Amino acid sequence: MHYKLAFIGFGNVARSLARLLMRKQSALERDYGITFSVTGIATGRHGCAVNPNGIDLNKALALMESGQSIASMTNYHLPITSSLDVIQHSSADFMFENSPVNYETGQPAIAHVRAALNAGMHVSTANKGTVVHGYRELTALAESKGKVFRFESTVLGGTPLFATFREAFPAAELQSFKGIINATTNIILSRMEEGETFDEAVKYCQSIGIAETDPSGDVDGWDASIKVAALATVLMNKPLKPQQVDRTGIRGITPEMVKQAKAEGKRWKLVASAERDGDSVRARVAPELVEASSPLYGMMGSSTGLTFRTDVLPDYSVSVSERPGMKGGPDETAYGLFADFINAVK
Amino acid sequence: MHYKLAFIGFGNVARSLARLLMRKQSALERDYGITFSVTGIATGRHGCAVNPNGIDLNKALALMESGQSIASMTNYHLPITSSLDVIQHSSADFMFENSPVNYETGQPAIAHVRAALNAGMHVSTANKGTVVHGYRELTALAESKGKVFRFESTVLGGTPLFATFREAFPAAELQSFKGIINATTNIILSRMEEGETFDEAVKYCQSIGIAETDPSGDVDGWDASIKVAALATVLMNKPLKPQQVDRTGIRGITPEMVKQAKAEGKRWKLVASAERDGDSVRARVAPELVEASSPLYGMMGSSTGLTFRTDVLPDYSVSVSERPGMKGGPDETAYGLFADFINAVK
Repeated sequence: MHYKLAFIGFGNVARSLARLLMRKQSALERDYGITFSVTGIATGRHGCAVNPNGIDLNKALALMESGQSIASMTNYHLPITSSLDVIQHSSADFMFENSPVNYETGQPAIAHVRAALNAGMHVSTANKGTVVHGYRELTALAESKGKVFRFESTVLGGTPLFATFREAFPAAELQSFKGIINATTNIILSRMEEGETFDEAVKYCQSIGIAETDPSGDVDGWDASIKVAALATVLMNKPLKPQQVDRTGIRGITPEMVKQAKAEGKRWKLVASAERDGDSVRARVAPELVEASSPLYGMMGSSTGLTFRTDVLPDYSVSVSERPGMKGGPDETAYGLFADFINAVK
Repeated sequence: MHYKLAFIGFGNVARSLARLLMRKQSALERDYGITFSVTGIATGRHGCAVNPNGIDLNKALALMESGQSIASMTNYHLPITSSLDVIQHSSADFMFENSPVNYETGQPAIAHVRAALNAGMHVSTANKGTVVHGYRELTALAESKGKVFRFESTVLGGTPLFATFREAFPAAELQSFKGIINATTNIILSRMEEGETFDEAVKYCQSIGIAETDPSGDVDGWDASIKVAALATVLMNKPLKPQQVDRTGIRGITPEMVKQAKAEGKRWKLVASAERDGDSVRARVAPELVEASSPLYGMMGSSTGLTFRTDVLPDYSVSVSERPGMKGGPDETAYGLFADFINAVK
């Protein structure tokens, strides 16, 4: 089967995805009988392109990486100037939505997903805003069209958390979960344990490109709150807004507190958790003092992970740990989008 | 959809499964549209029963638990005296195979699976022997019949390891894995750290029913070797026999070694691992001295877990940890069989 793909948003994650698709091209054909072409790309600063015969991905990447527009790659009878134009005219079977996240409203990503589903495409997005602001609507719309709306990359990078619960835990009831889901704050706390100040550790995270100039989304616990809300919304079927999460960031953790914890064989971690409480869900993001016996104690640096309590198994934990040459980031997130694509069409 | 089920083998795991099916009955109908009846049961010491109209599971459990035969529950025009009779005449859609494991040949379980697939049933088994001795044959037979052959319960109890790789890691190449996969030896080493001798710790495991009178299958590393072989066979597609695993058990670990490790902040663990080596797989089970920074360090008692290295993500770990009221064992294994059933028919 041949699939036409559209990329809405073409930043680091989407570019990693494009490279991953090219690297896995022959394996996809051999193992799954899947071939693909890219018929539409919308970028933030390098224009848009639609070509029903397929866009040369290497050429598009090269143009963007040398700062040029990809608009010249359009081969279509109408002008293509926006994301919605690309969705409308790419005739794609699958859309990857990677426009910038808007935590307040989920827009314009939700509008992109809606348009793509209405045009008969499956959708995968790395955009957490679409999940916390549009999960029920977009899932229902996808079902009504016989398509899927997927978002594996929104939590724990591209590790298969949603697919695991969807495919591998049938008829299990998730009672609670708890873990470390923001890598930036975990790196900051890990480096403070090695003697850096909060500001030095934040600067380090900015220098490697994982913290923003304004780091408050991470250090004040917003990113973790959005992820907790997404997890509760999907896995517990309880729509939860980030604002409903009881949230405390890590600004109050002083070097003295970190030193004291270390002396006691403990560690401060930014812990995200949610548990069912009757018919609702109580969710929380806050620094916690973690004992050496906790599975969270050993998660250092960019490592993240979650423990799930269900009615059918002992506590089940998943984690991803950095390793030389593969530290997460865009490549990891890209794999989640890639897996969503294969799982939807295989 | 209504499914007729056959149980071949009706020990602790199968009985847990029967109770789980009854507990989840209304959820299965509500969430998946699945109803079921049990049309055949073969036990080791309590006879066999076939009834096309459905066997009353509560009554069958009560009969067996009071030491009686279930043969009187048969309602069929032919005599039913063996597992193969049950398979032949139960008209089941799905067979749960839980006869005793034979590590040398995988029989008679393999014959049961073959007969059930040939009779048009899906099959799930908790029997590791069928995987290490029959994986390719039985998988090919299942495919030729449009059925599935599943075995989620064979490794890490009923936690969804095979389903996760099958459904959630598309087009990923598994390069290596490493972990703790035998609970008995992990309990023994944990108790030795608390000051017990090897013999005392073995006795404890026997007293709670998780070690055999002859504990050599666990303490000499055979059980772990069989699981490593099963994992490599399925996840790396490299058929491996337990005899090909480089195997050392824990009999050589003395209380002095455990004490010395503790003093250095380390722990002895029975570590199972496998890695690709060109076109083959090197697999090993042996005690290893584990540092506090290892994800294996914190796995105590009956907790088990594995770390997977793929070409697409940072290291991905899963673990199951005992918790009050849910310590693994038959209920956990039963969930793997249950999940295989739902996943096959949903």
